[in-house]
Amino acid sequence: MAEPTLRPFFSAAADFATGRDSPLAYLERCLAAVDAYEPQVGAFVHLQRDVALRAAHQAAKRWREGAPLSRIDGMPVGIKDIIETADMPTQNGSPVFEGWHSHRDAASVAALREAGAVILGKTVTTEFAATTPRGTRNPWDVRRTPGGSSSGSAAAVACGMLPVGLGTQVIGSILRPASFCGCYGFKPSVGAINRGGSHDGLSQSAHGPIAASLEDAWITAYEIAARVGGDPGFPALEGPAEPPAARRPGRLAVLQTPGWVVAGEAAKREFAALLERLHGAGIRTVDAAGHAGLAALERLLERANPVSRQINGWESIWPLQGYALQDASRLSQSLRERIAEARAMRPADYRDLLAERDRARAAWASLAAECDAAVTLSAPGPAPLGLESTGNPAFNVPASYLGVPALTVPVLRAEGLPLGLQLIGRMHADADLFALACWLGENLMRG
Amino acid sequence: MAEPTLRPFFSAAADFATGRDSPLAYLERCLAAVDAYEPQVGAFVHLQRDVALRAAHQAAKRWREGAPLSRIDGMPVGIKDIIETADMPTQNGSPVFEGWHSHRDAASVAALREAGAVILGKTVTTEFAATTPRGTRNPWDVRRTPGGSSSGSAAAVACGMLPVGLGTQVIGSILRPASFCGCYGFKPSVGAINRGGSHDGLSQSAHGPIAASLEDAWITAYEIAARVGGDPGFPALEGPAEPPAARRPGRLAVLQTPGWVVAGEAAKREFAALLERLHGAGIRTVDAAGHAGLAALERLLERANPVSRQINGWESIWPLQGYALQDASRLSQSLRERIAEARAMRPADYRDLLAERDRARAAWASLAAECDAAVTLSAPGPAPLGLESTGNPAFNVPASYLGVPALTVPVLRAEGLPLGLQLIGRMHADADLFALACWLGENLMRG
Repeated sequence: MAEPTLRPFFSAAADFATGRDSPLAYLERCLAAVDAYEPQVGAFVHLQRDVALRAAHQAAKRWREGAPLSRIDGMPVGIKDIIETADMPTQNGSPVFEGWHSHRDAASVAALREAGAVILGKTVTTEFAATTPRGTRNPWDVRRTPGGSSSGSAAAVACGMLPVGLGTQVIGSILRPASFCGCYGFKPSVGAINRGGSHDGLSQSAHGPIAASLEDAWITAYEIAARVGGDPGFPALEGPAEPPAARRPGRLAVLQTPGWVVAGEAAKREFAALLERLHGAGIRTVDAAGHAGLAALERLLERANPVSRQINGWESIWPLQGYALQDASRLSQSLRERIAEARAMRPADYRDLLAERDRARAAWASLAAECDAAVTLSAPGPAPLGLESTGNPAFNVPASYLGVPALTVPVLRAEGLPLGLQLIGRMHADADLFALACWLGENLMRG
Repeated sequence: MAEPTLRPFFSAAADFATGRDSPLAYLERCLAAVDAYEPQVGAFVHLQRDVALRAAHQAAKRWREGAPLSRIDGMPVGIKDIIETADMPTQNGSPVFEGWHSHRDAASVAALREAGAVILGKTVTTEFAATTPRGTRNPWDVRRTPGGSSSGSAAAVACGMLPVGLGTQVIGSILRPASFCGCYGFKPSVGAINRGGSHDGLSQSAHGPIAASLEDAWITAYEIAARVGGDPGFPALEGPAEPPAARRPGRLAVLQTPGWVVAGEAAKREFAALLERLHGAGIRTVDAAGHAGLAALERLLERANPVSRQINGWESIWPLQGYALQDASRLSQSLRERIAEARAMRPADYRDLLAERDRARAAWASLAAECDAAVTLSAPGPAPLGLESTGNPAFNVPASYLGVPALTVPVLRAEGLPLGLQLIGRMHADADLFALACWLGENLMRG
């Protein structure tokens, strides 16, 4: 198996209008990668080649006629299998949903289709987007996990089977697999992309793209939000239709997060070298040792993981308790334990957890008034060996808990494997985070 | 057809333990009312007598053994047909969903079942819980609308076919039909009852009971929230398991709302007489003429209806746009227009509408620091003649828009027909609103 290569769409599409390339030829290159990698990687639960070829053919015609439906017309996309699709089953990585079919498109899928995207298939999710993996392997080394829970979307994008896979993140399910697989990953501000028709109704959860480029991540998110908005009650993603232009950061916060203590030495060295390049380029940074507000935030983030898990547990009682009552044997042991713990909570316990989360959000908002973004690692190291665990999300929980936008860009390496740099932005300022990431990519990456 | 009579459950259940009455006998009385009224009223889309009889039999056994599952064990309930049920189709009052079956219970239904409630059937909703009625008639006068969109739940409760029907309200869909049909109706604080698995995902929408007594409304809402909580990210309904005891109000705000100018003379006289009784009992009231904060709130509420409709429109693009693309002829003209209007909006327009709603919510919060609750009519008058419209929701929009709890109690009359008194409470202080309503019921109602 050859070393995986990303297959960006936005840059390729520049040739669609001239006729030097086409969405059909692009899809055929994706399908060649599927042939080469899928048997060993196992990124898909369901593939619909013929449907995709027909859709790409239509898109090619529109580009030729100078009338594409959007910037993502003809873009092959994979849909995490907790998000409903009218033409494929939605199985939630669980035997409870074996063959289950809603016969409707989730909001994000409806928007993608309307914008001309080519839905190639459903990608593997862990059980109910929680922790039990479903066999997908990392294209960089098939003995390693691709991360989770958006395992299939990350693995498929990593080796050019797709330019974009939709993922969801409530703890670390977009940024961690994107980091492990060497992809770009974007978790938007909470509520910024409509989650209607997806089985991730938790209050911290967000839909976002795992992508082959920063541009692909932006145009996908933008085209969805422009058509179906965000979650009810939340501002939808706002920004330009074109990928945001580079903006030089003023000051950045260096966030250690509870992940720092478990981070590997190689990863820490890579991050330190990146900080040196940042300083060399004249970017100011602050850390917890030199900033009381940041230190206070780091303390509040120490409980981000346990509090998030308790919040998620309470919010998962429905529908999981119902499945447990029907036939508990079809749920993993870890899920059954999670339900039992959550059932011991009372409404007042949950209310207190929300208040604790709100205190951390307020601390972040106050810090964000002084810093453009925070930078940290996207994972404690490269993808670990083994398929039993999807890896440690300690670096990812903070942005999920805070509800703010986060990006991972695949610009670090450790042990010869990809590792992401994470940027965490201001609430609802998702486009600005892309602008900062674009500047870092253009100015700081090693040649 | 005899004059409709409510059939309270909580008071009847006092005899279940002693054996003088039983859930099975109770259900049989409900079924006799179904036989008597349903052919003319048309409250149900789907009835499952045999399933209900078996469930009631089990409940009767538990009560006999002194081990009921909850205070609502054996309580017959109807489920508005936008809320999913594992054993019946969910058809959303729309040909788009004819025969559609999710094979799962919504959160509220799962909780009701777990608490021992007897699910008798699915009750009629207007098309997608919006404005196009589906033929249900008012048991008080079958030439009149029962109101909507929770038409079937209100009509069934009004004539003793059920003690409780679940409803949903995003504009006026619980309080208006409850008022027109002479029932109690409770719209909880936004998010207080889990809406998972229901097709009313709008940000102002709430699940709540239409009930034969204040006690029945409370115990139903309480038992649901205790089991499945509220919406993700929102505090769940809190309060005592027993119906809250009466509390004498200190000061009440008299809210005119935009409904006042369309209210009938008889309704206004009834309300004025009620205010006199309040004053006679020593309760202080304030109105807009004598309170600047209340006047400011009334001004902000002038736009509650158009802003709510625009917010709902934007939030309904998914899934309605998808249905329109499939086959627009299966949607009503009014729904097609609503989608077209919403599609002309941009994310920034929606964000501005949310901000406008937030300003009204802040004004209410500040007023609520000085008043225990607001009182007003629940409708401009009794149920109007005709089945083409479900009536004017002008008195109901404010509480939906503000996201705060509201109750209607059937203590007024106009033109010989029922009319509700509305109480609007403080955010998340739902139990206290019941306590105030209980006091008013015990102290102020005409003999």
